[in-house]
Amino acid sequence: MTNLRIIPLGGFGEVGKNMTVIEYGNDAIVVDCGLMFPESDMLGIDLVIPDVTYLKDRPNLLKAFFLTHGHEDHIGALPYILPQVSAPLYATALTRGLIEVKLKEAKLLAKTKIKTITTDSIIEVGPFTIEPFHVPHSIPDAVGYAIYTPAGLVIHTGEFKFDPDPIDGRPPSIDRLRSYGDDGVLVMLSDSTNAERPGHTPSEQVVSQTFEEIFNEAQGRIIVSMFASNISRIQQVINTAVKHKRKVAMAGRSMVANVKMAMTLGYLNAPEGILIPVEEMEHYPNHEIALVCTGTQGEPTSALVRMANEDHRQVKIKASDTVVLSATAIPGNEELVHRTIDNLFRLGANVIYQSLRPVHVSGHGAQEEQKLMLELIRPQYFVPAQGEYRMLVLHGRHGQATGIDAKNIFIIENGQVVEFSETKGFRAELLEVSNVFIDGLGIGDIGSVVLRDRHMLSRDGFVVVVMALDRQTGKIVNGPDIVSRGFVYMREADDLLEEAKRRVIKLVSKGRMHPDAATSAIKDNLSQFLYQRTHRNPMIFPMVMET
Amino acid sequence: MTNLRIIPLGGFGEVGKNMTVIEYGNDAIVVDCGLMFPESDMLGIDLVIPDVTYLKDRPNLLKAFFLTHGHEDHIGALPYILPQVSAPLYATALTRGLIEVKLKEAKLLAKTKIKTITTDSIIEVGPFTIEPFHVPHSIPDAVGYAIYTPAGLVIHTGEFKFDPDPIDGRPPSIDRLRSYGDDGVLVMLSDSTNAERPGHTPSEQVVSQTFEEIFNEAQGRIIVSMFASNISRIQQVINTAVKHKRKVAMAGRSMVANVKMAMTLGYLNAPEGILIPVEEMEHYPNHEIALVCTGTQGEPTSALVRMANEDHRQVKIKASDTVVLSATAIPGNEELVHRTIDNLFRLGANVIYQSLRPVHVSGHGAQEEQKLMLELIRPQYFVPAQGEYRMLVLHGRHGQATGIDAKNIFIIENGQVVEFSETKGFRAELLEVSNVFIDGLGIGDIGSVVLRDRHMLSRDGFVVVVMALDRQTGKIVNGPDIVSRGFVYMREADDLLEEAKRRVIKLVSKGRMHPDAATSAIKDNLSQFLYQRTHRNPMIFPMVMET
Repeated sequence: MTNLRIIPLGGFGEVGKNMTVIEYGNDAIVVDCGLMFPESDMLGIDLVIPDVTYLKDRPNLLKAFFLTHGHEDHIGALPYILPQVSAPLYATALTRGLIEVKLKEAKLLAKTKIKTITTDSIIEVGPFTIEPFHVPHSIPDAVGYAIYTPAGLVIHTGEFKFDPDPIDGRPPSIDRLRSYGDDGVLVMLSDSTNAERPGHTPSEQVVSQTFEEIFNEAQGRIIVSMFASNISRIQQVINTAVKHKRKVAMAGRSMVANVKMAMTLGYLNAPEGILIPVEEMEHYPNHEIALVCTGTQGEPTSALVRMANEDHRQVKIKASDTVVLSATAIPGNEELVHRTIDNLFRLGANVIYQSLRPVHVSGHGAQEEQKLMLELIRPQYFVPAQGEYRMLVLHGRHGQATGIDAKNIFIIENGQVVEFSETKGFRAELLEVSNVFIDGLGIGDIGSVVLRDRHMLSRDGFVVVVMALDRQTGKIVNGPDIVSRGFVYMREADDLLEEAKRRVIKLVSKGRMHPDAATSAIKDNLSQFLYQRTHRNPMIFPMVMET
Repeated sequence: MTNLRIIPLGGFGEVGKNMTVIEYGNDAIVVDCGLMFPESDMLGIDLVIPDVTYLKDRPNLLKAFFLTHGHEDHIGALPYILPQVSAPLYATALTRGLIEVKLKEAKLLAKTKIKTITTDSIIEVGPFTIEPFHVPHSIPDAVGYAIYTPAGLVIHTGEFKFDPDPIDGRPPSIDRLRSYGDDGVLVMLSDSTNAERPGHTPSEQVVSQTFEEIFNEAQGRIIVSMFASNISRIQQVINTAVKHKRKVAMAGRSMVANVKMAMTLGYLNAPEGILIPVEEMEHYPNHEIALVCTGTQGEPTSALVRMANEDHRQVKIKASDTVVLSATAIPGNEELVHRTIDNLFRLGANVIYQSLRPVHVSGHGAQEEQKLMLELIRPQYFVPAQGEYRMLVLHGRHGQATGIDAKNIFIIENGQVVEFSETKGFRAELLEVSNVFIDGLGIGDIGSVVLRDRHMLSRDGFVVVVMALDRQTGKIVNGPDIVSRGFVYMREADDLLEEAKRRVIKLVSKGRMHPDAATSAIKDNLSQFLYQRTHRNPMIFPMVMET
């Protein structure tokens, strides 16, 4: 008797690095392989990726990766994970395009097998039959997956909203979703992002309308910032610009690359001659220019932030500019976003952001859309996915509201396996899965010890005391010298550090000491002394040599 | 000919550490003396206070401090500023109570002259005549100031909203505000906090109603967290608890202290026997208990966070508990707040927060209230105060909407003096004012150098290389030894550090080197080597001794 197992490796109890294993017997597929940006206490960490120990320990288990859409938190970990566990990738054309850019950069493209799928595809992998279905999201070509298994049908919704009037002209396939429900669904994993938001997420047309108003009002240039992956939003700016006879330029490396790729694949449409290189902007009057760029999260190296800081090579902000931030701040980025808006205002620009006008709508369905999905699919079991813990809890409640029994709803976090036998679903083992940190070239070499040290150093810095003792007499032959950073301003702390040195000399002069004993005595003494004098706790490292 | 000068020392272009100097000839008064909590890039900093160099340089200028209300960002810097520039304080009774707690702790109470004022007071200080007027805010006994000067009337609104039905039963004094307008106001400084919010801030009664619903529904204990200074909100919980026959306990040091003080002064009313010590909670059934505590910002040492982390000494969260967060997250605190909510949900509690139900309203008036204030006061000149730059800009626009000429609106940041001659108002000099950081016992001793070092240490840590060379031969007699923290996990980086040592030995063995030359060569070589191998940039400190 084989059980179906759902193994959450990322995105359950957190936002980001989405990755779910669907396992049956000796075969498994993975849905998504995303990365997460570090939380503020992950000091110096560049990225966080899922822990795939489970798959590495079972070398022949994984048969394929299925990607739902091209956002970083769904495909971004592929360059780091593929060298650890390899399998063919399945993705729609645009998602594939975005993946290929990444794999090329990582020199992994040649050795990776990728298959393009459409919403007409039926893919057989081991015991699984997989059908991608269309879902509207804030990037085109997003899909969910219907995964037929010997134990029953699994629905993974991907990330979705029920926008009846999306920019790409492809509304959600209500009938298809309902027909899965009619067939009978064992378990559904569904997008919990907006479980806190009542009602429906507004249609993208709301943003189109605001853009129309802004283009009507603006006398000077219009600069619209957004995520580089927000192809639909870029299309909206192009559409509005065409109507208002403005040229459109792009700024930001990722923006330029994505637009080029999306144009080539036909996901972005612009009439001949409307797009111009950013260098040519100055050849046109202000009122004939729209500029699309990155920087809505206040990222220090992004185009918009460079403009706000007056260090963008090609674009200087003018007092006649209208600047639009067409996104909301991801929690944790608020300070950087506010600083960027403030700096743009300081340069005299008219800044328009979500608090002032509806220049953004979420790519995720709100409560009523989550309930609609639940009502269409009518799963026997429900696993809220893709969200922080409170969102999973609330999404679970919405499931109950649509009639699912509380005992058939699994609020699980990364590592908590859920298993389905012929008769029931239940919580199986809890795997140990950790955050795998990327820092420079290191993958997973930074753990809690290094992070704790970074935290301590960031608060109070360090003090190193170096000294050489005579091996025979125990007398000081050199030093003590002190180096300190992040603790006090050295130039003004002479007295403090001189007194610290005198204490060290006095300690060591008491009699012959083993270097280890001296080290320990100095550390204790200086910790106490420096705390008493400053109420700070620098890390203290005495280094005592014998010569 | 003497000019009136307004000198913004804090709170202009930032949220927090409010402090404004009003100067005429050889006399000045200060309105508010607040502190600010550090932004996320102010690593290891405890608090930020205003820079009062201007006042210190003019020892006889300052005649009095006038405090608008008892929040930290208005009175919190007094213990640090009073030893630098001393003058009598003027405050209403509750504000005074809160100030006295602080000054007592700082052993400054005995030497500080404090005068209690009411909204009937008329205070003469040098050439100024000052009238406090009542404004509703999220703490009782808040005032604004009408400051009569030889150059004209200055209105400082303090922080306000036009709540027609506040908890303390004292609505705003519309007639009095209008009569100042009738008298003719030269310049108004007004609260910009909610300049981004359209409409009116809802009345506190909205929160009372939600509390009523929650108390109706909850079967178990009710735990309501809020700012310890939110006396009105505490009163709301007490009122609702009385009605629902629950006892009320308080947790959190500052909460207990504030409640005691507010009870003594009569700002908080509770029927005999309703308040119980937190230790006695266990003597009552769950449904007879309400607990008021701190922790809405996810502060790690607060009562609520300790409960969420299961390390509160007296209160263990039960699955039957209803926990209310009666505040919104201050930007920058979102991650900590979300983590707290998630942890409470993990313990099974039902958590109610602002995204789900209206359990909080702002203490600041929204756009229509800002406009109402402008229309009542009808100032000739308008200086938006108390807000980040974009809020000041938007508040300025609201001023224009009420008919004030754009050239009479001054969007200024800390240090930008505005001066009023007999004929006009104008921007005068820009003073250099910096953030003064409090770190442990240090006041202002941490500057940009130490912060930059802390930032570098927090990202990539440090490496210290110690070595002793023979003074005669230049040969290594001891070392090289390496100490590193925050860079790599030492136990797993043996190879890397051994190779680093070999490179150092090779460098130094090339021939006799002056220790300074060796230091510089080692630093360059290791920087390059370690970056190439890890793509990290630890701070590198070679310490070369001669013996």
